[in-house]
Amino acid sequence: MATVLGANQYGKAENRVVRIIRDTPRHEIRDLNVSTSLRGEFGDAHITGDQSKVLPTDTQKNTAFAYAKLHGVDSIEDYALALGGRLLEATPAAEEAEIRVEEYAWDRIGDHDHSFVRRGGAVRTCLVTVGRNGARVVSGVKELTVLNSTDSEFKGFLKDEFTTLPEADDRILATSLVATWRHASTDVDWNASYDGVLATVLDTFAATYSRALQETLYAMGTAVLEQRPGLTDISFTAPNKHHFLVDFSGFEVNGLENNGEVFIAADRPYGLIEATVVRR
Amino acid sequence: MATVLGANQYGKAENRVVRIIRDTPRHEIRDLNVSTSLRGEFGDAHITGDQSKVLPTDTQKNTAFAYAKLHGVDSIEDYALALGGRLLEATPAAEEAEIRVEEYAWDRIGDHDHSFVRRGGAVRTCLVTVGRNGARVVSGVKELTVLNSTDSEFKGFLKDEFTTLPEADDRILATSLVATWRHASTDVDWNASYDGVLATVLDTFAATYSRALQETLYAMGTAVLEQRPGLTDISFTAPNKHHFLVDFSGFEVNGLENNGEVFIAADRPYGLIEATVVRR
Amino acid sequence: MATVLGANQYGKAENRVVRIIRDTPRHEIRDLNVSTSLRGEFGDAHITGDQSKVLPTDTQKNTAFAYAKLHGVDSIEDYALALGGRLLEATPAAEEAEIRVEEYAWDRIGDHDHSFVRRGGAVRTCLVTVGRNGARVVSGVKELTVLNSTDSEFKGFLKDEFTTLPEADDRILATSLVATWRHASTDVDWNASYDGVLATVLDTFAATYSRALQETLYAMGTAVLEQRPGLTDISFTAPNKHHFLVDFSGFEVNGLENNGEVFIAADRPYGLIEATVVRR
Amino acid sequence: MATVLGANQYGKAENRVVRIIRDTPRHEIRDLNVSTSLRGEFGDAHITGDQSKVLPTDTQKNTAFAYAKLHGVDSIEDYALALGGRLLEATPAAEEAEIRVEEYAWDRIGDHDHSFVRRGGAVRTCLVTVGRNGARVVSGVKELTVLNSTDSEFKGFLKDEFTTLPEADDRILATSLVATWRHASTDVDWNASYDGVLATVLDTFAATYSRALQETLYAMGTAVLEQRPGLTDISFTAPNKHHFLVDFSGFEVNGLENNGEVFIAADRPYGLIEATVVRR
Repeated sequence: MATVLGANQYGKAENRVVRIIRDTPRHEIRDLNVSTSLRGEFGDAHITGDQSKVLPTDTQKNTAFAYAKLHGVDSIEDYALALGGRLLEATPAAEEAEIRVEEYAWDRIGDHDHSFVRRGGAVRTCLVTVGRNGARVVSGVKELTVLNSTDSEFKGFLKDEFTTLPEADDRILATSLVATWRHASTDVDWNASYDGVLATVLDTFAATYSRALQETLYAMGTAVLEQRPGLTDISFTAPNKHHFLVDFSGFEVNGLENNGEVFIAADRPYGLIEATVVRR
Repeated sequence: MATVLGANQYGKAENRVVRIIRDTPRHEIRDLNVSTSLRGEFGDAHITGDQSKVLPTDTQKNTAFAYAKLHGVDSIEDYALALGGRLLEATPAAEEAEIRVEEYAWDRIGDHDHSFVRRGGAVRTCLVTVGRNGARVVSGVKELTVLNSTDSEFKGFLKDEFTTLPEADDRILATSLVATWRHASTDVDWNASYDGVLATVLDTFAATYSRALQETLYAMGTAVLEQRPGLTDISFTAPNKHHFLVDFSGFEVNGLENNGEVFIAADRPYGLIEATVVRR
Repeated sequence: MATVLGANQYGKAENRVVRIIRDTPRHEIRDLNVSTSLRGEFGDAHITGDQSKVLPTDTQKNTAFAYAKLHGVDSIEDYALALGGRLLEATPAAEEAEIRVEEYAWDRIGDHDHSFVRRGGAVRTCLVTVGRNGARVVSGVKELTVLNSTDSEFKGFLKDEFTTLPEADDRILATSLVATWRHASTDVDWNASYDGVLATVLDTFAATYSRALQETLYAMGTAVLEQRPGLTDISFTAPNKHHFLVDFSGFEVNGLENNGEVFIAADRPYGLIEATVVRR
Repeated sequence: MATVLGANQYGKAENRVVRIIRDTPRHEIRDLNVSTSLRGEFGDAHITGDQSKVLPTDTQKNTAFAYAKLHGVDSIEDYALALGGRLLEATPAAEEAEIRVEEYAWDRIGDHDHSFVRRGGAVRTCLVTVGRNGARVVSGVKELTVLNSTDSEFKGFLKDEFTTLPEADDRILATSLVATWRHASTDVDWNASYDGVLATVLDTFAATYSRALQETLYAMGTAVLEQRPGLTDISFTAPNKHHFLVDFSGFEVNGLENNGEVFIAADRPYGLIEATVVRR
């Protein structure tokens, strides 16, 4: 035959694992979305239809739920490392297990022992790859929507015959950040690391005068790498959530002016800025 | 002709109005989704195509943005009352203006003056109807996702030949609440009222032992009406977000038990419980 | 107590029922989303927590799946009538059962006996209410997205100080229609009726010169009622999916003009036109 | 400084370009979602805030709309090649322009000249990368939802202590395909190529007895490469849209059996199978 099997992987996506820790009357909750996949020598499954090396995606699902109890979820990274190791052990043909986890945050209602309200906002993520000779961990956050209502400009840009954008001295800068950062090892206090990165990203976003979203991303990345020596790089995907100043000039109302006060939040299209900052 | 025009209305939906209050260096943000519609004598627009009585939806949009400056947004209810009054005034054929507003909450980043992070979670809502002889206000909340990890049962229910559900002594109770409550007047401190209702709903949810989601809704409604004399009724739409205990019995692992600790959060189908509680 | 229970209902929403008819080698598929709810004397469930009159939503789900076999799905209306009747029979406290069904269309792949590709586009709907003394049927369609690239204008409208919209002699008219129509009886060939209404709606949309979306809706409603004597009324919810002519005037390209050829399809805000046409 | 800028790109995403061809009274419509991005020497924009080499994303948007007229949209690949070439020409610092296009299909309503109904279903896609020394084109399709109601099994798989899945001799096989295929050159009849690939994918899906979704993907990929010599490889991302046979055994109804007739279409989790087939 003139064709061969190229890159391939398979697994179970979006297992909605909810773990209640109820060892004491004061419960805790971990609310996860877990996706697993395996890569390796699975050519038979594709070419001859022989499934004997294939651990079913249903079994991967079962393992994800069982490990929420057997191993527990101290952090999503720690749980993913254990789960990936287990799937690799159970599947001789696999060379790598890739585990993706999202975590949704909940707040306790008042001081109640077993009542929670979903926080919304930023979703914590990780992507853990467990191989036969070690593991790689990328932590992250998504849906982290931030906005500066001033201290942002965009001017001095390249112009051609299709350029109509006026230069802006004072605009809203807003984005729904996706950020991922790579750890140099797996010997990490995952929860402290996440909290630290998030605080640095937010504080740098707030404190940086922005001449473009690119500059803000680079500043955030540099600040994170400087403060967290265990990280090798950090990447951002940042949709520029445009807030256009509404034009009041056509309204026949005396004295009505829009001095950076009323904006329309636009949906599409949106600028999309992507950048990685790497430790030298 | 054998047909007549029945109920009809028209307007502009989902104006994404963002208002920055920047009178001092410490900015504030109000982030709204505003929908307007008009009802009245608009038969000509439908039947003969004559649009002379129709204030364009584009003008309704412009007014929504202009009023974020001209009137301001002290609360979404107050803003909606002003906007509805204006649209009615500008449109002689209209009998009623209906204004719907959703508000997305933002938190300040640290102590920065003009930097914000979107909170997520519950969305505040209102539905304001302004007529020629007065206005009606319904306030509300949606996407208020709450969970009790114990103190919930469901048993003693009706059974028929299709019933296979086992009785449950201890289950997770979770819902993504939509609640709306009606004010007896428009002379209300809207922000204080909203905060009060939300606190009562959350606290009652947490404090109530539940024999069914119906009982929890009724308890929440009663508590709100008892504490807020200015309200005439409150309605809930509550999807029962099922969390099914994962069955570990098929796994060949000694001692592995699931004592209310690991659940799968299901998407569809979901129970849907709706109830109104009314002041006698 | 100072409060009483008002309107209430409960049920199971979004049961994704897929029925394969495989009596012969040439299979057929019916792909449904079924929601059921019951209304009646369910005060005890709310007030005292006594669930003895409550047929569980889980049982309603089971019944929805069982009836796809026991009764079959000749049409969604016929299936919903049977399912509603059954739920009412099984629940003495219920006064009405309300069944909502959506149907997703599939096309056969070539002439293969058991292979299908999902069609997309319009979704067929019904809302059937079965009471102790008879039933009411509302059929419908949603996500029927239609567009006329000319023969649409909007002018002669009311103007105020916030009006900046220019009059339009030739614009795109596009909407994603939701339509529902009420049957005078339940003795109907449901599939033929649906096909007939859909054909009339589409043909009238295409053939009508439009001075506003309102006029187009009224024309479609009138045409449907004239052709289908068994219907009492028809209602439309029609978001005006704005297609704005892109302004080429700022580009420094000789001879570049936009003669109704290039548009930007906008997301939000959108006009929202709603109208009912009633048989006199 | 201890950090350097790594991979980066920027552009405008999701320009909703609608092109009406109205050279004759019989109009045509092309409905696109266009995303552009540029990669190259943009370090200054990130590090010093100097934007002088940056063609604004707003200009990229303008160009996308202008080129729908200036170049036209014979096929999305052809349009993307022209647009990418233009952006590269206008931006000296750019090394590559990447253009992504989705196309939504519309059907003509009856024989009307300027009336259309959106087809739904499969979305045609392309990803075109234009560099200083040539271009690469990947065509594709997404949301192609297909289902075989028989001729699918899954058995003989690897088992461990968490495996509870029974072997299946006859199940529903359904997936919402994403497929992308790479062209060896840019000298291609793009529309004929797309139609040919789509027909082969559908026909092979229908005609292949499946021992796993992996085997079906490989068969489809092999068939496409055999029939289209201009392609170098094809990749599939295929969520296994599980249709679980509903268990009727608990119902107390004599003779009620489910012989592969009633299924519940599940949402999450889902198997996710990904594979590339490469020409040797």
